[in-house]
Formats: sequence, C-alpha cells, structure tokens
Amino acid sequence: MTGQERSEEKSECVSMSPMMEADPALPESERVCVFGTGDLGHSLGLRLLQAGYGVVFGSRRPHSSSRLPHGAQVLGHAAAAQSAHLIFIAVQREHYDFLVPLANQLKGKVLVDLSNNLRKNQYPEANAEYLQSLVPGAEVVKGFNTLSAWSLQNGPSDANRQVYICGESAEAKQAVIAVATKLGFSALDRGSISVARELEDFPLQLFPQWRLPLRIAIGLSAAFFFYLLIRDIIYAYVTQGKDISFRIMVSLANKVCPIVSLIMLSLCYLPGVVASFLQLYRGTKYRRFPDWLDRWMLCRKQLGLLALGFAFLHVLYTLIIPIRYFVRFKATERTVSVIRENRTTEFDTTTAWRSDSYLSLGILGFGLYVLLGITSLPSVSNALSWREFSFVQSKLGHLTLLLCTAHTYLYGWNRFLSSSTYKWYTPPGYMLCLVLPSVVLLLKLLLITPCVDRTITRIRQGWERGADQRNPKDSQPLIP
Amino acid sequence: MTGQERSEEKSECVSMSPMMEADPALPESERVCVFGTGDLGHSLGLRLLQAGYGVVFGSRRPHSSSRLPHGAQVLGHAAAAQSAHLIFIAVQREHYDFLVPLANQLKGKVLVDLSNNLRKNQYPEANAEYLQSLVPGAEVVKGFNTLSAWSLQNGPSDANRQVYICGESAEAKQAVIAVATKLGFSALDRGSISVARELEDFPLQLFPQWRLPLRIAIGLSAAFFFYLLIRDIIYAYVTQGKDISFRIMVSLANKVCPIVSLIMLSLCYLPGVVASFLQLYRGTKYRRFPDWLDRWMLCRKQLGLLALGFAFLHVLYTLIIPIRYFVRFKATERTVSVIRENRTTEFDTTTAWRSDSYLSLGILGFGLYVLLGITSLPSVSNALSWREFSFVQSKLGHLTLLLCTAHTYLYGWNRFLSSSTYKWYTPPGYMLCLVLPSVVLLLKLLLITPCVDRTITRIRQGWERGADQRNPKDSQPLIP
Amino acid sequence: MTGQERSEEKSECVSMSPMMEADPALPESERVCVFGTGDLGHSLGLRLLQAGYGVVFGSRRPHSSSRLPHGAQVLGHAAAAQSAHLIFIAVQREHYDFLVPLANQLKGKVLVDLSNNLRKNQYPEANAEYLQSLVPGAEVVKGFNTLSAWSLQNGPSDANRQVYICGESAEAKQAVIAVATKLGFSALDRGSISVARELEDFPLQLFPQWRLPLRIAIGLSAAFFFYLLIRDIIYAYVTQGKDISFRIMVSLANKVCPIVSLIMLSLCYLPGVVASFLQLYRGTKYRRFPDWLDRWMLCRKQLGLLALGFAFLHVLYTLIIPIRYFVRFKATERTVSVIRENRTTEFDTTTAWRSDSYLSLGILGFGLYVLLGITSLPSVSNALSWREFSFVQSKLGHLTLLLCTAHTYLYGWNRFLSSSTYKWYTPPGYMLCLVLPSVVLLLKLLLITPCVDRTITRIRQGWERGADQRNPKDSQPLIP
Repeated sequence: MTGQERSEEKSECVSMSPMMEADPALPESERVCVFGTGDLGHSLGLRLLQAGYGVVFGSRRPHSSSRLPHGAQVLGHAAAAQSAHLIFIAVQREHYDFLVPLANQLKGKVLVDLSNNLRKNQYPEANAEYLQSLVPGAEVVKGFNTLSAWSLQNGPSDANRQVYICGESAEAKQAVIAVATKLGFSALDRGSISVARELEDFPLQLFPQWRLPLRIAIGLSAAFFFYLLIRDIIYAYVTQGKDISFRIMVSLANKVCPIVSLIMLSLCYLPGVVASFLQLYRGTKYRRFPDWLDRWMLCRKQLGLLALGFAFLHVLYTLIIPIRYFVRFKATERTVSVIRENRTTEFDTTTAWRSDSYLSLGILGFGLYVLLGITSLPSVSNALSWREFSFVQSKLGHLTLLLCTAHTYLYGWNRFLSSSTYKWYTPPGYMLCLVLPSVVLLLKLLLITPCVDRTITRIRQGWERGADQRNPKDSQPLIP
Repeated sequence: MTGQERSEEKSECVSMSPMMEADPALPESERVCVFGTGDLGHSLGLRLLQAGYGVVFGSRRPHSSSRLPHGAQVLGHAAAAQSAHLIFIAVQREHYDFLVPLANQLKGKVLVDLSNNLRKNQYPEANAEYLQSLVPGAEVVKGFNTLSAWSLQNGPSDANRQVYICGESAEAKQAVIAVATKLGFSALDRGSISVARELEDFPLQLFPQWRLPLRIAIGLSAAFFFYLLIRDIIYAYVTQGKDISFRIMVSLANKVCPIVSLIMLSLCYLPGVVASFLQLYRGTKYRRFPDWLDRWMLCRKQLGLLALGFAFLHVLYTLIIPIRYFVRFKATERTVSVIRENRTTEFDTTTAWRSDSYLSLGILGFGLYVLLGITSLPSVSNALSWREFSFVQSKLGHLTLLLCTAHTYLYGWNRFLSSSTYKWYTPPGYMLCLVLPSVVLLLKLLLITPCVDRTITRIRQGWERGADQRNPKDSQPLIP
Repeated sequence: MTGQERSEEKSECVSMSPMMEADPALPESERVCVFGTGDLGHSLGLRLLQAGYGVVFGSRRPHSSSRLPHGAQVLGHAAAAQSAHLIFIAVQREHYDFLVPLANQLKGKVLVDLSNNLRKNQYPEANAEYLQSLVPGAEVVKGFNTLSAWSLQNGPSDANRQVYICGESAEAKQAVIAVATKLGFSALDRGSISVARELEDFPLQLFPQWRLPLRIAIGLSAAFFFYLLIRDIIYAYVTQGKDISFRIMVSLANKVCPIVSLIMLSLCYLPGVVASFLQLYRGTKYRRFPDWLDRWMLCRKQLGLLALGFAFLHVLYTLIIPIRYFVRFKATERTVSVIRENRTTEFDTTTAWRSDSYLSLGILGFGLYVLLGITSLPSVSNALSWREFSFVQSKLGHLTLLLCTAHTYLYGWNRFLSSSTYKWYTPPGYMLCLVLPSVVLLLKLLLITPCVDRTITRIRQGWERGADQRNPKDSQPLIP
C-alpha cells in the first residue's frame, strides 16, 4: 500500500476536528469512552452514537485517527479516560500494557473488557483478570465479547440479543447492563470475574450442543457400515467369490441411513420415557434427574434433526433405485430369463399388499418426520404455544416413530423365518435396529394406559407420593 | 423421598436469611410481591430480579422455603403483602382461600392472577373473578397466564412477547403493563375482568386457526377416498370379480392426495377473488366483508400449507411408483407379451410430449408450491416487505395454481372422450377436482383484465362509487 | 351504498363524544395528533393509544368521524394541531393543500410525513419536501412509511422493527425517535430531508437484492437452453431427420437445471476466493474492495439459494425419469431386442461402480445443499454464532461444491474421449459448466495450503505487510 493510496483513503473519510471538546451539555452518564479504533471499536462507537450516547475515542495519536464514526470525539488516552465513567477496551490483550501508566485516570472507572482469544487456554488467566491485575484501581467488567463488529453495527437480531457479563462490582455491572439495554441487548449477569474465562471461550465454541448427537450418529454409522460390509460384501466374496463391492455406494448406504435414522429417532424419545418412569418410581417431580439424563434430554432436538437428515438421505437413496445401472440390468435379465425359460409369472396379491403398505407407511412416516423438523425451526416453534409444541413433538413424534417402526417390520416381513437371512449366524441390520424403537414404543404404551397416565399427570401437577408435610399451596404446574 | 435426601437437596440450594428486611432504598414501585413458591413463582421471581425489581415472596412457612432465587426475600403472607403494591398470585385456584384472612393487608393492592385451568369450563366462573369475590377490596388483574415458567425464565422470544391482561381498574392495569414492559413483554389490554375466562382458555387451545382447514382436509380426503374406493376397487370386484384391494395403499392414496391438494389450493385463492368481486359490486372497500368471508380469508395460510402437505405426499407417492412390486410385475408382463405375441411397438411422439409435459408442469408447480411454503415461515415472511409478500403469495400463488391445474388437465388429456372412463356413470376424481381451480382461474382472469383491474385498484385506494359526500382527504391506501 | 347501510355501519362503531376535551393531566409530550382517519391513521392511532399516548385526531368534520379507535379524541384540524407538538400526517399527498391555511397553528410543530407513492418518480419532488414547502414554519420529518396499517396494528415483529426517518431538525427527529421507540420500533436516522425520496421509494422496491442473481440465473438458463436445443434436438433433426422435440420438456430441462445450479454455486463461492487473493496481493485488509466485488459478495446468499432451487428441480427431474413414457418404451425395446437378437448381456462392474458413485455423490451433495439452505433461513442463521455460521457456509459450502463437481465429473466419465460427444465440434453442456467450479476449487485449494493460509489469517487479524507506522494497538479482529 503506497503512501498515495493511504492519503486517498483518508480523504474519503469523514474529517474530524480532534480538538473539539466533549459536549458539556451531556451528563457523564450519557458519555462513554472507547479505547481502540479497530473494527470492533469503530462499530461499537457507531452503535453507541446511534443510541444517543456521546462517544469519546481514546487513541495514542488522536490527530491521525481518521477512520472514526461521524459525531465521535477523539482524544488522547488520558484525556479520553477522564471524560467518561465507562470505558470500553476494544484492544487486543497483547497491548493491554499501555493502560498501566493510565492507572491514575482509570481509578474508579468501569472498564469493559471486550476481548476474545484465538483459541482456548491461550493464556494462563482470563483476559479480564489480567486487565484487572494491570489496573487494580478500576472495576473490570467482562462482557459483549460474544458480539461481532458486524452484529454491533447492524443491531441485535432475535438470537444474538442476549449478551453475558461478569465482574466483581455490582454497581459497575449495573452500569454496563444499562448501556447494553439502551443498545437493544439484553444483558445477563453471570457472576463474578472468575466466570470471565468461560465467557471468553463462548465465541470459540462450535456447535457444543451438536457434539454428542453427532458423535452418536458417526459411531452408529461406522458400526453398522462395517457390520453390513462384512455380512453383505465380504460374505458374498468369501462364500461365492463374487465381487459386489459396487454395492457399497448405494445399497449399503441405503441400509445404514434408515438404520441409524430409526435408532436415533428412538434415542430422541427414550429419555422422555425414562424420565416418566423415574418420576413414577420416585413419586415426585421435585427431585432432579441424574446428570446423564438431563444432558440426554437437552440434546433430543439435535438427535431428532440428525435422524431426519438420515431419513432424508434414505428417501433419496430409495428413489434413485430404478435409475441404477445394476437395477436396470437385473430387470432386463429377469425378463429375458422368463422368456428363455418359458416360465409363467404369477401375481401375488399378498406381496403387492406388503410392498405397497411398506412404501405407504414409509411415506407417511417421512411426511410427519419433515413436519417435526419444520416445527423445530426457531421461528416456527416460537409461534406455537407450549401445549401446541408439546402436542407436535410428543404425540406426532411418537406417531412418527410408530409409523417408521411399522415400515421396518413390513420391510422384514417373514424374512426372519428363512435361515439364509442369518449369514454367518448374524442377524440382518434391520432386525438390530428394531430393538430400540420397539422398546420405546412398548414403554410409551405402558405410560399411556389410563392408570399409569393418571399418576404421572398428578405428579406433574405437583403431587408427591406420601409427602403431605409439603405445602401444596405453593405448587403450580410448569405448564401455565 | 427420605428425609436424608430432602436435606441433601436443601443443602444444594441457596441459603437465604428469611429475616432480612426489604431494601429500604427501593421505592415501593420497584418492589413486587409473589405469592407461591412453585415453578411459576420461582421463575417469575427470578425474572423480576433480573429486571431490577426487589422481590418479596409470600410463604406460609417463610423459614423453610428453600428453593427461591438468590436475592429474593421471603416473608409470611401478611408481611409480604404489606411490602409491595403489586402482588402476583402464582398459586393454584384451589388454594385461593388462604387469601381471605389477608383481606385487610390486601386492601387497595393490585393482585395479578396468573392461574390457568386444566380444561375448559372447569369452574363456574373465571379464576380471576373468583379471586375478586374472595378479596373484594383488592384490584384483580388477570394476565401473564399464557406464559410458562420456562419462557419466564428464558426471557421472551419474538412469538411469546405479547401478553394479554384484563381487569376493572385502569390504574391497576397500567401498573401491570409497566412491569410487563420492564420484563420485556408487550402487554395488551383486553378489557374488563369479564374477559378473564377467555384469557384463561387461551393456553388450553390447540391450533385454533388450523381447525377449520384441517376439517376441510379430512372431509375432502374421506369423501374422495370412498368415492374412488367404489369407482376403482369395488367396481373392479363387482364387474370383473378381480381383487385389486392392494391398490388402496398407494394408487388410491396417490389419487386422493393430489385431488385434495388442488381443491385446497383453489380454496386458498377463492376468497381473495370473491372479496374482489364483492368490493367491485359494492363499489367501496369501506364496508366489512361478511363474517364467513372474513373467517375464510383468515385461514388461507393454513389452507395453503395443508395443500402443500398433500402435494408433498403426492410427489413421494408418484416417485415410488417404479419401485412397487405391482408396477415391476406389469412391466415384465408387458415385455413378455410383446415377445410372445410377436407384436411390434410403435413410439408415439404425441404421447411422449404429453407425458413429459405433464411431469414437467407438475415439477414446476411443486417447486413454486414449496417456494410459497418457505415464504410462509414466520422468519421469512417477516423479512419481506408488504409488496414482496403480496407479490409472492398472490402472483406466484396464482401461477402455482395455474401450473397445477394444467398438470391435471394434461393428466386427463383425451381420457374424457372414452366411455370406459365413466364407470357406473360417475366422472373420475381428477375431473371433479378440476372444477374449482378452473373457476378460480377464470374469475382471476376476469379481475386482471385492464378495465376491471383499474376499478379495483381505485377502490382499494379509497375511491367509492357515487360517494362524494365522503371526505376523500382521510383515506390512505392500506398498503403504505 | 345506501344511506340506510351507512347508518347501520355507524351504529356498530364506538360512539364518541367529539366535544370531550384533551385530558389535561397528560403533558404535551404524551399527546400526539394524527391527521387523517383512513386505515393508516386509524391503525396508528390505535397503536399510539396502546403505547400510552393521548391521541387527538384532526378531521375536517370531527362530528361525523365515526371509525376511530376507542379512547381517541377527534377535533377540527386547527384545534387538533394546537393540542400536540407532534403531528402525524396520514393523508395522501394530493390532499396536502388543506394544511396551507393551518400554517399558524403548525408553526414550530413536528410534522411526520407517512405518505408513499404508487410508483417511482410520480412527482417531481419527494412528498416530504413538498409538505415542507407548503408549511415552511413546521419541522417536517419523513418516516414510518415502510410500515403498513396492518403491521402498525399488530405490533412490530423482528423483521419490520426497523423504521427509517430523515429530516432537517435534529430535535424534531429526536422527538419522532422517542415515539417510535415507545411504539416498539427501532428508528434509524438516515440524514437530511433530501433522503426522503429514497425512503419513499423503499416500499415500492421488489426484491432489490434478488435482481442481479435472478438476471444471472435467467441469462444462464436461456443461454444453455438454446445451446443444448441446437446440440441435441436440432442436431438430431438436421443430421438424422429425427424429431425428438419432446425431449425439451424433461431431458433438456434436466440438463439446464444442474448446469445452471453448479455454475451459480461456484459464482457464490468465487467472490470469497477473489477477495482473499486481493487481500493477499495488497497485504492488508484495510483497503476497500472494488465496488463490483462488494456488490457480488452481498448477493452470495441469493446466488446460493437460486442454485439450490435449480438443484431441487434437477433432483425432481431426475427422479421422475423411470416414470416417463419414453424411458419405459426404451426399456421394453431394449429387452425385446436382447431376446430377438439372442444377445447375451454382460454385467460391467466398473459401470456399476461409476453409476452408483455418481448417484451417491449427487445425493450427498444435495443433502448438504439443503442444509446450507436451511441455515440461510433468518431464524436459523440468527441462532448461530459467527463462528458456526462461517463454518457451515464456508467449510460445508465448499464441500458441497466439491461433491457436486465430482458428481458432474463422474457423470461425464470417459465420454470426453469419444468424438461423437462433440456434435458440430461443440463441447457438451456438462463440460462447459465444469470450468468455473474447477477453477474455484483449485484456487480454494491454494488458499488452504498452510503457508498461504497463515498469511491470510494474519492479514485478517489486522496485520499489514510493510506497515509498522500503523498503531497495532488499535486493531481487533473483526471476529470478536
């Protein structure tokens, strides 16, 4: 970048008089200071100005800081610090040491640490704790670090409206919450400065809620892939010397997908059933579930959506069957053999019923599956009342599981009677995947029998078995 | 639950000194009281604390109420009632009688009734009216009852931001609205306490807007199912003695789905056309539509989405056709008969054109159908301007109807000429389902002819036929 | 509309005493005036009342204005104007002249111009400028015009929460912003009154961001359609005299769709790659991209979604292949010829591998494609953190491109070796469409080699090549 280009760029920018004084009409609470004139500082300043705050940027060389939002002041660090009570530190941690000589001006000020790291455990202590140790006289509040320059500039949308803060001083945190609210964010106090490290790790997380379900999906897929590889491809090669390895791409994939999908769908409804039995056994809803059950219940949505993804692939893999070279070849071969061997073919109504029912159940199951997926979209589930959401996810969800399980049973039909099914004495994949959904459906059936259902409902309304010393007045169902 | 378990649980909870006094620094308007320490009371208290209110819980045994949010006070009912002007009653209706002895302390207080019932008409009068009769000296406001403990704890999202209140005293309602606003909700005053029953029925409703469209869908499906059952299956059995009942599962379903889908899609666009003709006939837009038309127009979205659901099933049922046992059997049989009877087959270009056009129109129609469905998602339709939404839903919607109708006409083709089509003198299903969309398209065609369109546009801009006594100044088009 | 009907209607409305005085308890800042009692004025008044404002309607004939929200006052224009500082003008521009005689009463008042036009450039100057010229003594603020009567009545949802205002007087704008905030909108000051024309054109725009991508899609579709029409249909007709025009409907469409989809998907990822190389060449991220690149990057989402649409059509067109009359005819013909010529067919494992891999890659590519589309839904992308969104759109996006490109290469396979492929010396469509994605993937491959990646990452973190005069302290990565 040549000097000429630089000056061209500068001339495009708003020229600002760095000598102008802070507007004396604005009270100190309406004025905030921003240290750091990078992207983040710039965007933050702009947003603060739009919200009606007076903004003073602190810069090492105030006269040459050209890329600042129109309406902001720019002063030296010391002068800027004195002009406001609240100072946003939009500077990378490596450069925090410039604050040490400003200790006097920063005494009693609220410093908001916006910084993030590039990876977890980059430094021994949290940035906010490091900042506090450098400027012990100031009140450090960690916060706003989950926001990007982009979202600061464009205003909060529904999902990133929530920001987290932490710090020692309640007053300092209150001041930061007030600014956040005025900027349109909803700030949540997470506690003392020791939480800072956790907050700093937030933006580095990648789909934390999807990790466990993804691992289950990958594990199940790999396990069934190798199981079926051995049973289908390697068995044929070993026993008949036939190379049917090309089946890996479609036939095998189209067995793994539905198996994993059905198992994950039942894993999605199993914890609810387990929780009901636990409440039934304990006779109260007031005791916490064990941690593993809590964690399981929290990832039901992800389990269900992954199951839907596998079902979607299964549908596509099934629909392309008649286009496959192998299938078309076999069809021709079959017809040719009928002619050459002069056989007559007999139409079997039972097979027609079975084949059509099996396809029809699969279609209806997939239709409901997609409906469940659509109601999981944030904007759709937000528009549902609690009762509607629970109706869709519970009633329709179990119906989906029932349809898909029936679809699989019809697929198997009477194949379990034939000994050729049990190659090398192993059951076929579809049999293995039927175990879990059958168990879930049986348990659910038990739960909806009138007598069990009545007890569960009473427990959910706050009733406790053999616990009359409890004040019944204070309980109100979770469902309003 | 043994005593040991209970105490273990208690030790996990925040220990609170129930003797601590209400913060004297907080003015009374900043302090609120919550009666009831169940899930709902707990969540409400937490949210109030987060919004900066001082929260006092009223409890029968203040010294043993352990599960309360950190920062809240807990007092006896009488003391708690005296500490604040606004009291949330998060207690079930059956226990309201504990409030009777507190009549003195509750005099002039605002009581917010949050309660809900388990089913409609559970009690002779609304809970709020019952509460008012128990404590005549207090001002009862019904409200917040559409919120669950969960949504109170997690803060309002876009869809459940709106809460409804009602009550006699305007001042009391204003105080409740103020708290709701501070909690991030937008409270809507629905009128006097007599509306309370309606508000209490809200959370018990299950998809009220979907009821009529669902009934239409089920009715149409059932009617066409039996009609086609008689025409296809029973006719074949009676006249030829053939059992083709297996066709119920796929062939029949694949006739019912597209028929219902097309009829419901035209039902979705018919009311708009009717409304236009009504405005044209009346010569003004300022008269209300008849109630049935209003109700019909309000469920157009639901009609369209159900139609999309049926179209989706139709697509799946169509795509699995070549996988069906019956179809594969027939294909082999046909080829075999060609060989055995030594026939030659002739390729018919017209049939190829018809078949491909029919499929292609169906695909394009379904593509637009899906596009309409996607723009119906709340988050997508919110992102569209009024003009964009109307373009998609009206222009593209009618184009979808046109494509799907043409698809059906091409499906029928010249079949209507053959007398074998009219089994037992009944027309086939596809003919019946073409009536309504053809009418809608013809009427729409009339409406978009330039001269009619000009009049409609003027009417929509506020012009009235023969009505110059009206002040034209006050009209502004609905479209901003 | 007869007189009887009119009076019937009136009797249904809330009867209001037009003589009632403005509530003297409300300060002037809590009272606003609305001129115009049409749909827009009505809805605005209702919303203002709900937000707690006192509302005074100005009407020419205050005694006969019956359709006003309950709780509002109605006065003559002059009296209404005097009762409030802020006056909303919900009247069409053609009727603005009634304001001229009110010049005295409007002196110093803030007039909010809500009007819109029916088409662009309907009038020589903006409505707000015209209003200002009519009432020079008042402060005109343009604003709220993007809202419809409907959205005013129903409250702001996430997407239309933002309203734009402009005007000369900062104080007047501040007053309007205060009202907007209280109504639940977030008002953005766009500058002086000269911006009014731009704001007035807003509601007339139809998908401005979709225009360029749509033009590209239509242009590409048309070009490839004619190219393939010549190569496939006309070539067959000219060289062999065969009429295969019926192939236009499905076969040709199923070639155009995937070609356009793949090209548009690569156009979606090309600008990101170009931008990276530009930053690499310049050695800094602080210089603006050229305008064409900026514009291109801003329509990536639209390019991607259109590409998904074409891919969706391609999938449907592919799946219906076995149902086509032509395909079924050919299959029978092939089998018949095998029999009659007494040929034996040999199963080719390589072809089976190729065919299945080609289908499988297509399915996986489409699955990821759909996933990308789902994460583009506003409510889903809002729920993702910046890092998650960038992971999905960049990593998964390039993986999708890779899968779809590989799918196309496998489709082509060794066809490029056969001279019959190059009809009239032109390459087939699939070859042409492979150029761009191959280039994008190669460039991306270069960018993710460790040494290039390291430089890019440093540049994105604020590092500049040969630029140490820059204060490094002020830079903070865009990613917070």
